[in-house]
Amino acid sequence: MPATPNKQVIFSKVPTTYPVPGEHITVQDSTIDLTAPLEEGQFILKLLTLSVDPYMRGRMRDASIKSYSPAFPLGKPMTGDTMNVVVKSNNANFKEGDLVYGKTGCGIFAEYSVISKGMEPMFEVRNEPKETGLPITNYVGVLAMPGMTAYVGLLKFGAPKKGETLYVSAASGAVGQLVGQIGKTLGLHVVGSAGSDDKVAYLKEIGFDAAFNYKKVDNLTEKLREVCPNGIDIYFENVGGQMLEAVITNCNQFGRIVACGMISQYNREKPEGIHNLMQVVAKRLRIEGFIVGDSVEMKEPFRKDMTKWLLEGKIKYRETVANGIEQTPQAMVDVLRGDNFGKQVVKVADL
Amino acid sequence: MPATPNKQVIFSKVPTTYPVPGEHITVQDSTIDLTAPLEEGQFILKLLTLSVDPYMRGRMRDASIKSYSPAFPLGKPMTGDTMNVVVKSNNANFKEGDLVYGKTGCGIFAEYSVISKGMEPMFEVRNEPKETGLPITNYVGVLAMPGMTAYVGLLKFGAPKKGETLYVSAASGAVGQLVGQIGKTLGLHVVGSAGSDDKVAYLKEIGFDAAFNYKKVDNLTEKLREVCPNGIDIYFENVGGQMLEAVITNCNQFGRIVACGMISQYNREKPEGIHNLMQVVAKRLRIEGFIVGDSVEMKEPFRKDMTKWLLEGKIKYRETVANGIEQTPQAMVDVLRGDNFGKQVVKVADL
Repeated sequence: MPATPNKQVIFSKVPTTYPVPGEHITVQDSTIDLTAPLEEGQFILKLLTLSVDPYMRGRMRDASIKSYSPAFPLGKPMTGDTMNVVVKSNNANFKEGDLVYGKTGCGIFAEYSVISKGMEPMFEVRNEPKETGLPITNYVGVLAMPGMTAYVGLLKFGAPKKGETLYVSAASGAVGQLVGQIGKTLGLHVVGSAGSDDKVAYLKEIGFDAAFNYKKVDNLTEKLREVCPNGIDIYFENVGGQMLEAVITNCNQFGRIVACGMISQYNREKPEGIHNLMQVVAKRLRIEGFIVGDSVEMKEPFRKDMTKWLLEGKIKYRETVANGIEQTPQAMVDVLRGDNFGKQVVKVADL
Repeated sequence: MPATPNKQVIFSKVPTTYPVPGEHITVQDSTIDLTAPLEEGQFILKLLTLSVDPYMRGRMRDASIKSYSPAFPLGKPMTGDTMNVVVKSNNANFKEGDLVYGKTGCGIFAEYSVISKGMEPMFEVRNEPKETGLPITNYVGVLAMPGMTAYVGLLKFGAPKKGETLYVSAASGAVGQLVGQIGKTLGLHVVGSAGSDDKVAYLKEIGFDAAFNYKKVDNLTEKLREVCPNGIDIYFENVGGQMLEAVITNCNQFGRIVACGMISQYNREKPEGIHNLMQVVAKRLRIEGFIVGDSVEMKEPFRKDMTKWLLEGKIKYRETVANGIEQTPQAMVDVLRGDNFGKQVVKVADL
């Protein structure tokens, strides 16, 4: 029984602030026998690329705490968006050589996984990269959950109207860079913030009308007034805390705050307070949280539009690709600290 | 030229916390000559009753600060919802003996006012009390802005579904008592809080399923869990601050927070912080502010429904009636401190 090495990314310990690679997230060696016979319906996936996303921090919690996505079980492989190839199959729906998307929260962070019949709904054959020629990493980012989050958040919850001002925080990130570019296709005035001058330069390069490095700003409220002289109509909220407070003060009447995430708060033991919610009444603001998984009806239009935009070059997508599954714990921390640039993915193997 | 005394309620000074009667709001003597001839289009109103409402605190500000309703000019009579009778007229649209509603923010807090043609849109003939027999005070409360606020807020922004849990703070107030009763007509489970045991007893009397005195509660989060065992689907927000934070923690997925006002914060120099807005994302909450004046399309259905409910006894409306225009400054402070019970009005004169 020949043993093939099979590294796995394990959730090892619940963090209180930032997770530490090797402590809270570890990479463990194991082996798999790829020659063993498969049961009816089983197939083996070889992991090609995986996505690390900020929301995963919320799953790194004690299992007794309820939230919208289940806690990661301790001692087990973490899960998320993945792209894989079928290397062996006893299942007609998943043929050898098929590219398979491990759906959000379901793709297994291990070099190889044996998938049994009952787990089939967690996976989807996506052979499009063979036709589009787009990088496989795109299929865990711009063409997967992060891309659809931008699309659904702006179109469905932002209710954009041509000429309005859209402000995006964490704007060079996996979701933010897309929100801004989709906003431009709709005729919005688009402003973004990010955490380095390089990121700011990138935002301008991909068409943001204005962008700033929030780490160099003393007074966010004044800065937003300067870069959004007509006020903010739509805020795509990725960070929370002081940024949210400064946005509320700069919101126009009937402004929409689309709450996608609040990454600045994920690793704090005590979140910051927001002191100006009174303005929600006076300005008739709407603050609305959303989870992309609730909008499955938009999946097909999203995939069609986004693929088209990418192939036409209307939308660009910057990725940071870490090489090797061992890089996953550090990649996760980089995302949470904003040390990555663009969509963080981990390339595990070549096709 | 016979001089008739004409007391006026004057905005005298911008308060920083609670306004003080005689300092920030004063009652001043003046006179009016009711025998003088009127210009074309003019008419004289005699004030019968006026409404004092929490939102008026927001108008007691420096005129340089913008908000949804204009600042009161210093040294001039305050304005708000009023009911009046025409005592003299040179205007075919406003006949002697007509009852006239001074629209929200427009009715003048003076015993007599001469209204010129250009001011006509601020007033509306409302002779209904002559037919319905309902108290004239109802026409500045349950059948005016506060009543319509409850109606619009719950029906349009609350998006109520039968069987859901509705929680109302400041529930015995001008708006809250109606929100709860409308909620019951829709088949909601209705819970309210108020600031005295008497008010709580009243809430149960008018049909609230549960009610509590928030001043006797140490831990609002736990209390809400106890009185809303199925969680909160709709929160009609009148108070803000710690109450809002406790509600967010108890909200169900897809909960709606209808932000009507945040009275607990109006008289604080530094508002309280809300620390758990992260839950807006995880639970897909919607927090939406509204101003009743934006929903004029609902005015006629509101007046028809509410008049019917009152005449059928389906909705009760508790008022605190202060007698005499001199009582207005104290009545305003009572409302802001929650020392009134039900809708606070001031009866200025009999018909």
